[in-house]
Amino acid sequence: MKKLKESPLFWPAKLKKDHIEVLDETLIPNRMKYIQVKTTAASVKVIKEMKTRAFGQFLVVLNTFLLALNKMKSSKPEDFKAQQKVLKKIEEIARALNKSRPTFPFSEVTGIIVRWATMAIDSGLDVRTFVKKNTEGYLEGIRFKRLARVEEIAAIIQDGDSVLTHCNVSGELAMAAYICKQQKKEVHFFATETRPYFQGAKLTCWELQQMGAKVTLIADNAVGSVMSDGLISKVIVGSDRSCANGDFANKIGTYQIAVVAKHFRVPFYALTQPSDKIRTGKDIPVEIRRSEELLKFEGKKIWRGAVDAFYPAFDVVPHELVTKTVPIKVSENA
Amino acid sequence: MKKLKESPLFWPAKLKKDHIEVLDETLIPNRMKYIQVKTTAASVKVIKEMKTRAFGQFLVVLNTFLLALNKMKSSKPEDFKAQQKVLKKIEEIARALNKSRPTFPFSEVTGIIVRWATMAIDSGLDVRTFVKKNTEGYLEGIRFKRLARVEEIAAIIQDGDSVLTHCNVSGELAMAAYICKQQKKEVHFFATETRPYFQGAKLTCWELQQMGAKVTLIADNAVGSVMSDGLISKVIVGSDRSCANGDFANKIGTYQIAVVAKHFRVPFYALTQPSDKIRTGKDIPVEIRRSEELLKFEGKKIWRGAVDAFYPAFDVVPHELVTKTVPIKVSENA
Repeated sequence: MKKLKESPLFWPAKLKKDHIEVLDETLIPNRMKYIQVKTTAASVKVIKEMKTRAFGQFLVVLNTFLLALNKMKSSKPEDFKAQQKVLKKIEEIARALNKSRPTFPFSEVTGIIVRWATMAIDSGLDVRTFVKKNTEGYLEGIRFKRLARVEEIAAIIQDGDSVLTHCNVSGELAMAAYICKQQKKEVHFFATETRPYFQGAKLTCWELQQMGAKVTLIADNAVGSVMSDGLISKVIVGSDRSCANGDFANKIGTYQIAVVAKHFRVPFYALTQPSDKIRTGKDIPVEIRRSEELLKFEGKKIWRGAVDAFYPAFDVVPHELVTKTVPIKVSENA
Repeated sequence: MKKLKESPLFWPAKLKKDHIEVLDETLIPNRMKYIQVKTTAASVKVIKEMKTRAFGQFLVVLNTFLLALNKMKSSKPEDFKAQQKVLKKIEEIARALNKSRPTFPFSEVTGIIVRWATMAIDSGLDVRTFVKKNTEGYLEGIRFKRLARVEEIAAIIQDGDSVLTHCNVSGELAMAAYICKQQKKEVHFFATETRPYFQGAKLTCWELQQMGAKVTLIADNAVGSVMSDGLISKVIVGSDRSCANGDFANKIGTYQIAVVAKHFRVPFYALTQPSDKIRTGKDIPVEIRRSEELLKFEGKKIWRGAVDAFYPAFDVVPHELVTKTVPIKVSENA
């Protein structure tokens, strides 16, 4: 595989000596600022406050364990007390992270780490070293698979395509756009604003521009309009959580884009990471965020009037609306 | 017909002695401020800058003629020069207004006034008095028809209904909500934000609350989500321009709501004012507004990044997606 030009959103959280360096996605495109996360509590905070999101929060979760493990000493497998202490710490971190946000399957990811820890104890291996090595290998495997998926996305996009996307797919689409450009494919991207957080306007437009791609921003309201005008040839969106049957949760608004795409016969692609643990979309809990977030813009109240608001952060798209999923399998045997 | 509690948005432009009093809808719900419009140029300005919109701009158009006519003297029908002067003034006002915004059928409305003027001359009547009386009668007729439609909307809304609306229908829905309340119907309203101008969040929520109705704000992105959750039993939207065949133009986003409503089998009602002059939606020119409007919020740039944006202000919904239209006929024989 040839070296890809990498988007800052592709791997937005990296482990450093004594902290995790987390890209503050809320400041893009105005500023590139990295937050230094030094504790589990700080990890939970950046996730809750959506400083990082989607794939970034997955990276924060895994690196939170690595950060803690790096601060610990290895123990002899026969030192029962020391081994239990590491396991307890891992379980404690897992519990804290699981509570951060509901829709992303934190407990599935943290569950893998906890299982590695118990497995090490059961097999008479040093917990710290075993979990650390497995986690590092797991991350490497995912990196490799995501890079492969970038190539796959680039192969799906044809010369002359006009691709609509929603929210932000953490670097992969932008990197695929870069490959398309190298291949001399003429491609135009349309990005929805993605209210209320404007991830499309802020992250996706910025990222695609960084990669030299042509991108046009539209209001979330304009999807029907541009499709009825024949301006869109493909939809490509990411997924925050995917089920065994192909249903998937993604940023609020994805469901209606899928319905509208079907109406206009526009092929709809979803980048998923299917889990065997969750059978159908009905089993995905959807995060309802505080209504204030809908009534504020960049921390400032939009207007003085008091109004009741309902803000589900995600919706769940049934697999029938999906033309093709482009999965990566994030299993513990990765 | 019993007296209705009237929303300020139902009749947002009124003729005063030497000016038109135009409600500045961009300041609601923070402030109720009326702009004093004293010239045709000022009328064009409030329309272009969307200080008034939808039915408000229709009122501004008619009142602009009345304002000019009030400043003129009546002429004897046999005074050819004086009569022609009034006609010329009317034609001049018509031309200026026609250029203000493309999607609303300004030329149809101003055309009626111009025809009345030429009709008066042909019939040997005083132009000024004839046009003034006809215009005043026309406005009264429309007022009566709109009040009747408010009753009709209230009759469509059933006890237990949960009604989704988009953008703002200039008082009618809010006044229907008031009637429903008097009739002890339990009704819940959902209003979309309606990016980029937030008419739903600012005007519709405010107006419904003023009438004592229960209303919940959602992001434009949440339409698919709330419908899939079974939270919506009816959609009621207005129309900025309607065709003989039932197609209609309305605020951008209406098309996709209609598609999504059809997908979830939610009845979709459109308040229209069908015109014989325009046959199908294909004949409606859609206003493309400056991309800056999508990139700014309340005059302030949302982020520093430069990005290309496409902002069609309306979309055109084909009649096949409409369950029932609730028309008022705004003909010159009103």
